[in-house]
This record gives sequence, structure tokens and C-alpha cells, in this order.
Amino acid sequence: MSDRYAYLGPAGTFTQQGLLSLPDLPPDAQFVPCSGVPAVCAAVRAGDADFGLIPMENSVEGPVPTTTDELVLGEPLLVVREVFVNVTFVLCARPGTTMQDVRTVSTHPHGHAQVRGWLDTHLPAAQYVAAPSTSEAAGMVAAGQYDAAVCAEIAAQNHSLEVLAAGIEDSAGAVTRFALVSLPAALPEPTGNDRTTFVVHIAQERHGALNGVLTELAARSINLTRIESRPWRERIGEYHFILECEGHVADPRVGEALASLRRICADVRFIGSYPRADRQNEDLPHFATDKAFHAAQGWLAKIRKGEV
Amino acid sequence: MSDRYAYLGPAGTFTQQGLLSLPDLPPDAQFVPCSGVPAVCAAVRAGDADFGLIPMENSVEGPVPTTTDELVLGEPLLVVREVFVNVTFVLCARPGTTMQDVRTVSTHPHGHAQVRGWLDTHLPAAQYVAAPSTSEAAGMVAAGQYDAAVCAEIAAQNHSLEVLAAGIEDSAGAVTRFALVSLPAALPEPTGNDRTTFVVHIAQERHGALNGVLTELAARSINLTRIESRPWRERIGEYHFILECEGHVADPRVGEALASLRRICADVRFIGSYPRADRQNEDLPHFATDKAFHAAQGWLAKIRKGEV
Amino acid sequence: MSDRYAYLGPAGTFTQQGLLSLPDLPPDAQFVPCSGVPAVCAAVRAGDADFGLIPMENSVEGPVPTTTDELVLGEPLLVVREVFVNVTFVLCARPGTTMQDVRTVSTHPHGHAQVRGWLDTHLPAAQYVAAPSTSEAAGMVAAGQYDAAVCAEIAAQNHSLEVLAAGIEDSAGAVTRFALVSLPAALPEPTGNDRTTFVVHIAQERHGALNGVLTELAARSINLTRIESRPWRERIGEYHFILECEGHVADPRVGEALASLRRICADVRFIGSYPRADRQNEDLPHFATDKAFHAAQGWLAKIRKGEV
Amino acid sequence: MSDRYAYLGPAGTFTQQGLLSLPDLPPDAQFVPCSGVPAVCAAVRAGDADFGLIPMENSVEGPVPTTTDELVLGEPLLVVREVFVNVTFVLCARPGTTMQDVRTVSTHPHGHAQVRGWLDTHLPAAQYVAAPSTSEAAGMVAAGQYDAAVCAEIAAQNHSLEVLAAGIEDSAGAVTRFALVSLPAALPEPTGNDRTTFVVHIAQERHGALNGVLTELAARSINLTRIESRPWRERIGEYHFILECEGHVADPRVGEALASLRRICADVRFIGSYPRADRQNEDLPHFATDKAFHAAQGWLAKIRKGEV
Repeated sequence: MSDRYAYLGPAGTFTQQGLLSLPDLPPDAQFVPCSGVPAVCAAVRAGDADFGLIPMENSVEGPVPTTTDELVLGEPLLVVREVFVNVTFVLCARPGTTMQDVRTVSTHPHGHAQVRGWLDTHLPAAQYVAAPSTSEAAGMVAAGQYDAAVCAEIAAQNHSLEVLAAGIEDSAGAVTRFALVSLPAALPEPTGNDRTTFVVHIAQERHGALNGVLTELAARSINLTRIESRPWRERIGEYHFILECEGHVADPRVGEALASLRRICADVRFIGSYPRADRQNEDLPHFATDKAFHAAQGWLAKIRKGEV
Repeated sequence: MSDRYAYLGPAGTFTQQGLLSLPDLPPDAQFVPCSGVPAVCAAVRAGDADFGLIPMENSVEGPVPTTTDELVLGEPLLVVREVFVNVTFVLCARPGTTMQDVRTVSTHPHGHAQVRGWLDTHLPAAQYVAAPSTSEAAGMVAAGQYDAAVCAEIAAQNHSLEVLAAGIEDSAGAVTRFALVSLPAALPEPTGNDRTTFVVHIAQERHGALNGVLTELAARSINLTRIESRPWRERIGEYHFILECEGHVADPRVGEALASLRRICADVRFIGSYPRADRQNEDLPHFATDKAFHAAQGWLAKIRKGEV
Repeated sequence: MSDRYAYLGPAGTFTQQGLLSLPDLPPDAQFVPCSGVPAVCAAVRAGDADFGLIPMENSVEGPVPTTTDELVLGEPLLVVREVFVNVTFVLCARPGTTMQDVRTVSTHPHGHAQVRGWLDTHLPAAQYVAAPSTSEAAGMVAAGQYDAAVCAEIAAQNHSLEVLAAGIEDSAGAVTRFALVSLPAALPEPTGNDRTTFVVHIAQERHGALNGVLTELAARSINLTRIESRPWRERIGEYHFILECEGHVADPRVGEALASLRRICADVRFIGSYPRADRQNEDLPHFATDKAFHAAQGWLAKIRKGEV
Repeated sequence: MSDRYAYLGPAGTFTQQGLLSLPDLPPDAQFVPCSGVPAVCAAVRAGDADFGLIPMENSVEGPVPTTTDELVLGEPLLVVREVFVNVTFVLCARPGTTMQDVRTVSTHPHGHAQVRGWLDTHLPAAQYVAAPSTSEAAGMVAAGQYDAAVCAEIAAQNHSLEVLAAGIEDSAGAVTRFALVSLPAALPEPTGNDRTTFVVHIAQERHGALNGVLTELAARSINLTRIESRPWRERIGEYHFILECEGHVADPRVGEALASLRRICADVRFIGSYPRADRQNEDLPHFATDKAFHAAQGWLAKIRKGEV
């Protein structure tokens, strides 16, 4: 039976584009569009899908809080893969519409944030209407509800809309990073170019507690690739920290760092170790290599027996 | 001439409620509602308002990215005051509407996020429609566009709507923290219970650079109260860090820490030092007091002259 | 066959006094006085003695460089026990001698250093002559070579000298700490109140390398009890560091710290883990207990299998 | 009136050789030989000498405890210059003596430690007798008291002894570092290649206190060049730490670090900032330069006025 991939639908979104670019996607994969990140996660948790693809962060908009909250607070899911998707938008409308005709523009708020400057310049009088997704914005335009949509080109095609302008994003080269999640299962094998995601909760961020967390990484030459704080919800001013670092939990240095954090933090949730979709651009210092860790363990075993 | 306070309008939002709770609000203050955080900031920058009140973070939803981006990337503004507002929502509708009649519910996405659980339970079939603000949602319901709105009680009153349910937020006690901004000017005086907000940019988060930043605070017993990462926008995987810590830049320990960060970071933007609206709950260790800093400076001056 | 204990002789020194105070000294132990710390160590290395007792440090004079150099640079020996001896000196002379008669005073330089003040006050005109040991000073006085000796009372008795003054040390309560060494063998069992001694060599003390070493200890709540630098000998300005810390290498926190140092230092020599003869006066924080380490290891094993 | 230089006499010691190699020694300098480091220091403190030259450390023997204790515990003196002297020894005797005739060898214990291996090999049967100085050993040999002396060549010449063997030190290239001390006075000007010596006392070496001290240096890219622990004397197991680091207290980074230590340590004694006699072999990172410190101070002054 073929693998089912839930994703943030409907068809025509950047998430689907990410799904199609997964390097090891089976040819017979089935796609299950869902409305919203929670629905994707729910499908995976319920066994209605084997995998789910959800957006983690965007190079302009930043993190996607709903995704983070699902991973931090929901029933455990494991990130098993990541994929980067270049985000480029078109302005599209029903055939025959001109720029002068556009009085309302619909798109998803994240999409809107990325084209705000262009819209202010080219359509200063048009009213923005939030849509649940860029693809549905296109559908509503096709249905005549609004004049124009900001979406991926594929969505324009799906709805037979005409592209009025392409590449309208304010920051050229915006990129969204997506995570592929599954139920907890055997981790992807280490590849030598991996990323590890986890969450720490610190009882009270006092006395340099977060500093202590980062010191455990730095002392093992583990580069932090991202840190995001999310409210702890019980009261304002306390946070969870989602940390992403280079390396795989099966690597000695990462495993040892996580075990240390488990001791010193109120709680640690492991989210996954998986191949990086970008390249880590540095060699490890010799003292942080697997070889150095294994040699040190061998030495420790000997001195514990008095073989000095 | 009286001070003009821009705020995230329209009237009837929690921001207005925050404005009214500012402890030193002049009796003759004028209020200028604006549509969106950028508009509030623009009014202050243009001199159309003396102050602007904008939401920084919510204890459930987390940071408000638009606010952060304005403070990090826009023309410099200074935070001069903070205020906490307890967030509590009502579901309201046109008089005569019952729960059974509600097929569409409108509110701002942040409001929606805070009542999602309640809506799923009590109005599972109702469709959610995003509105630009909770107050406008109420207005649209009054106008007959949607069946019900989730908003502050004051907005229901303004629009003569009937409250169907009150206190419907999923996490009791959600709190929003607002910042009052002005053009750069003399800082508020230190009060002994202050907060300082600033932004650091690190060229590459490698070799424990963020750890180095936090070490400068921890070494001076400065508690970090919040850290938020925002994308650097040039490329994915690089970030600005917005840091908030206890203390005032006029305090020796905070000033010395910021000067150190200015040296070791690619860039530092100072956002403000202002009275905390909550209480810092610890005494300083003796070596971090102003007295200890001044004594050490006096000693240094002496030994530099060879008076040992 | 009974155990043979080499010690820094001759009979009548504080070392012998330390030997006799070893808590688990077998009743049939044989004592082998040696002339000098190197001779004690050589006897153990050659198998001519099972154990050797040598002075590590004195609370007034500081470390004993010859001992340190033997442990750092000589063929490996293991410290298996420590003992503290209160140092108190007498001035003694041949019967009939009075204070007025004393023109020359002999003792070991370490002994001299501890009574210098008393001698300056009470025998300002007497000439000091260095002797190889306080006991031999007594012997030379008995032989008529010098007028008076500064030594342990037992040495005065051995040589039938008369005590002119007792308790003449400048700092009341001086204490010498001795180490019992053996050839490498099974380590003493952890007792919950142990000390660990080791040596690190850092290629170049630059970029905070020693700081990095101490951070590995501090991050695991391991109190450093002593640090001594000894020249690396190849060129001036480079050093070995002898470190002593609380805990036993069999303790997870100490073992993990030493393994880390083995990775980050040019070289580490383990010198021993053995019961402390004084009391460590603090409870461990919960995150540094064996239990916390074992729990963290169990957790790591699980997440490495994807059991999150 | 010409400057008077006290030194560790008598004439013929390496200290005198160091004195003669001081780069800025006035041509009319007067030399005052003293017996022992305390006597040199006393002469300076009493105003009987303007300067005193005393040995700090040797590349084989390590630190000179008497010097350290004078600087740490005695009335304050300032180190104003350092000088390195290559140590090379001769074995000398009265004319006509052959190696076969030598039954007793006298020298200072520090000298003995540096030729022990050579003596064991070439004069295994000869008895060692400690002398107050290598020069006096030569004098006693000239007087017929012992057969041979180990001393500097200049001492052999002074006493008309014959050199039996030269360069007999076990570790070729041993070097002694001497310090020139004066009463507290204006410090030597910074040269860009300086060293700073100071002492810290930590109430209890617990909770990583020494680690905290070194962190203050490392955080400012200040290389530690030496650390020595000396007993605190009140009870065993507590220590003073003598630290030497690169840079001058007038340098912002060193001054700021010392002021921080003054706050966090129980006590700090400044011993001196003076030109290094060796070369520091690294450029400062840009963030530790004077320029970076001054820029940061200027920036801090501005933001404290709200000029952001």
C-alpha cells in the first residue's frame, strides 16, 4: 500500500510544491490536502496519513507559530525530513481584468506580508482581504468574490486565472522551510550533514539558565542554527525554546549535549534528527569529531580500571 | 497642546484598553486610532502622534511579528513604557441571534487562536472568517455580514451587539503586553525596576556567538526576560535577536553589558529602557549592584595611577 | 607477606607521623624510609615497596614541587589515599644548651619557612643552615654539628635532644597533606566523599583554553579543590596544570568531565580518585547527581531509537 | 643622585646577570646585593634601594614561592619591568681538583634541581650540600669547605675556581624570569606589548568561582600567561591565585576585566603592568582593540541620552 502524504492544502500551495520536491518521494505517493497545519498533524496522529508536510519558517516572515505549537505542545511527532522552497508570487485575476480594475486583493496573511510593499506601490487603493490560503484566494477570485489574488503560479493555472504580474515579492529570494513529520519511529540514519530539533523548558529564565543551555552546545562545537521562543502559556514572561542545531542525535557530541540538557532543564522534548537540505559549511574541530569522542570514551574506560 | 496617542484601532480593541490603563496618561490626552501596527508607527515617525501603543507579545500567541519588525527594521523608535492587559473575549451577535443561528464567526486571527478550542466545542459547524481586528469583526456582525464576532466586551457595546458567551478564551488569564513608543528622546529615568529592550545582529550564528552574547548578560547577573528571533531576510537561516533584560541602560551593569555587545556583535540597536509593569522578583547579588560597580571604577582609577 | 610502605625518611619526620595515621594501615606493615620524594617514588616503581607516602602541599608553604614533578613527569603512579597531618615544630638542642647558646639552627627549608618569624624574634642572630630533613637536622645537632634543630617532637626524642621551645610555627594550625601512591592498579571504590587528581597539558594557553577546562568542571557542578601550574620545561611560559576536584572518576559527572578534557586538551594524565580525608561540605544539585546522569542516559537511549 | 638597585646577591648570581641586562639601566646605577628575596624587598620598602630585582619563575623549577609570597602578602610593591635570563651552570672547583676528587658538591637547592640528572650520572657518589646561593657555594668551595660548586660562570671567575664542566643543566635552555620592583608609583607607559600581574582571593573556590575569573579575561580576548596558586594560610585547601595576563591596565580591555574581578572576587591586589620581555604572538581580534572599546563607549554615551 502506498504512502499517504498529508499537506497544507488546498492543491496549488507552496506546500504542495515542497511535497513534490522531496528527494525520496515514492512514485505512487498519495497526497491528502488538509486545511491548516493542525489538520495535517491530526491526520498523521490519527494514522490517516503516513507523513505530513508543514511550514516551519520563512526567510521573511519568520517562524510559523501554529507549526511550532503543534510540535511543542501537541502529541509527539517526529521531523524526519526538511525541504526548502523558493517563494515567488504572482498577481492574477479573471481574464480581461486590468490593473486599473483591481479594487480588492485577496491572499493569505503570510503571502500578503511578503508582497505588501509591491501592493502599496502598484495598487495603493486596493483593499486587502485575508484568505485561508493563497490557493483559496485564487479560487475566490475565480468565483468572482474578489478582483485579484496573490498566489503561486500553479494556483493561477488551476483556476484559469491570468497573471497580471509575476515575481512581486518584496524581498527577492524568500524561502520557506518545510518539515516532514511522522509518528515516532526509527530515526533517519545520520548522513554527516544533519539537523536536530528539540524543545527545552526552563523553569525560570533566571541566573543565566538559557546561557547554560547554549554553553552545552558551544562547549561541544555544535552550531545553533535556529532558536525560537514560544510562550509557556501559563503566565506571561515564561517561554519554551525551540532549538535547532547541526548534527544528529546519534552523533556523540549531539547525544551528549542533549543528555546534559535533559539534566539541567525542567523538560526537553526531542523533535527529530534528519538530513539537512542545505549544507553545513564547516569542518568540525578535531576535538568534536566522533573519533575524538570514541577515543575519550576508550580512555575513560581504561582509567576507571586504574590503567593509567 | 495635549499629547496625541496613536494606537492600534479601531476603538474597542484591547490596545485602547491598554492605553486607558497607562498610569501617567494625561487627562487631556487625544487618541488617534490607526489601522495596523505600521500605521501607528508611521504616525509617530511623522509627528502626527507623540506616542504610539502597539502589542509586543501575548502569553498564548507569542510575539507580534509586525511590531518586532517595525522596531527592528523601521526608522528608530524608542519604547518608553510597557503595559499588560488581561485578554478576555466575548462571543456576541445581533440581538435575537441564538447559538444555534451562528454559522459564521469573525474575529482577528490572534483572537481566533485564543478561542479556537471553545469554538470547536461550542460551534463546531461554524465557519471562521478572519477580520482585520476584533472590533471590526463586531462592526461587520452589526452590519449583517457575519453571524457572530469574538471581541472585547467594549466592542460589543460600541456596536450594540448582544453577548452570547463571555470569558470564552481557551487559556484563562491570557495577557497582552503593549509597548508605548515615541521618537528618540531623553530616556525615562531609572526606577530600580526597569526593563531594557535591544536587538543584536550576529554575522553568522557559529562558534557559539549567541552563547557569547548571553554570557555578557549572565556574567553581570542580568536576567534575560525574553528573546525572540526574527529572520534577517537576506537569506534563510540568519536572524536578528530581540533581547529583553531586566535593568536600565543607565545602570552600570546594563550599560557595560550593552557596550560589550556593541563590540562583539555585528550590530546592536537600542530600543529602550523603561519601567517594568511587572515586578522583578530578586535582589541583585552584591557584586552586581551600582555600588559595587562604582567602587570597582574608583579602584581601577587608583591602580591606573599606581596607587596600589 | 606484609605490605611495605616507603616514606620520606628518615624516621622522625612528619611523613612517618602521616603514615602511622593512615586509617587502614595493616598491623604488620613494614616501613621503608627513603631519602627524598624521588627515592620514595623509585622504590614503588621498582617494586621495592607496595606504597609510598609523599607530601603534596602544606597550608603555609604551598605545593611540594618535587612531588608534583614526580606525579606529572615520572613513570605513572596512582594516588590511592590522602592524609592530613598537623605540623607543629619544636626547637631542640643537646641537653644543657640554652637559648643564649644557639648560634646555628638547622632544619629543612620547608620547616625553616614555617618558623622564620619565630626565629627572627627569638634568635635574631642565629645562622640558619639547610638540612635534608628536619629529622636529619636533629641528628646533626645530636652529632654536635649545629647548636639547635627545628623538627617534630618525635625526632627530638629519637636523638635524645632537649626541647627548648614547642609550637614555634608562625602560623598556628599549619597542615601538610600527604598522598599515598602505588603502581597503577584497581582504583579505590567511590565512597561519596572522594577527590580526583589529574594533570592537563594545553598546547598554548591562548584563547581561554584553561577557562575551557574549568568550564567543563563547573558545568557539571564539580568543585575544583586545587590547581597548581608547573613549568612545561620545553620553554618558559608554558605549563602543565595539576587539578584536583571533588568526586570520583567512577561518578558519571567526573568521568564525563574527564572524557571531555581528554578531547579538548593536548594531553591528560589521570593521577587518582581516592577518599577525601576532609569533608566536602555541600550537597550536589539534583542535576549533578548520579541519578540525574543515569536518567539522562536512559532518555538518550530512548530518543535515539525514536521513542519520543 | 644615581638609582640604587637591590638584587638577590651575592655578586655572581644569575640575578646580577639579569640586572646587567636591563635595557634601560642607567650607566651610574648602584648595585646593592642582598641575602634573599625578602631582604631585597625590604630594602626597596625601606627606601634603601630604588628598585629590586627578584626571580619570579624558572622554566624548569617553576615559580619562586618566596617572591610570590612577598608580592602577595608583603607591603605593596609594584613590578615595573621583567627580564629573562638564560640559566647555564658550570661545575667548578679549586685549581688542581679533578672529577675523581669530588666528594661533596654544594649549590643552591634551585640550582641543584636543575643539574640533578647530570650529577647522578657524572658524580653518583658525591654528597650534595645545600648553600644559600650558587655564588656562596662557590665561595665555600674556594674556602675549602666543599670540593665543588654548581654556579654561574661569573661566580667561578669571582672566586678563581676552575671550571670542570660547563652547560651541565639537565634541561638545555632553562630560563629564569626576573621582576624589577619599586614602591608604588606612576606605572610604566603602555607599549602595546605589556604584561599585567595581579592577585585574586576567592572566598571559597566553589561554584566555579575561578572559572568565573578566567571567563572575565577570556570574554575580552585577554590571554592568561601564568596562573599560580599560593596557600591562603588560614586553612588548607584555600588559595590566592596569582594571575599574569597580556596587556596593560591602561588598556580598556584589561582595565575593564580587572574592575570586573574587583567586583566578583573577595579581594584583588594589583601587582603591576609593564613591558613584556618576550613577544606576544597574536594580533587582537577587532572587537578587543582599544578602538572597539572606545567606539562602544561613545555609542553607550549616546544611547544613554536616547540618541538611537
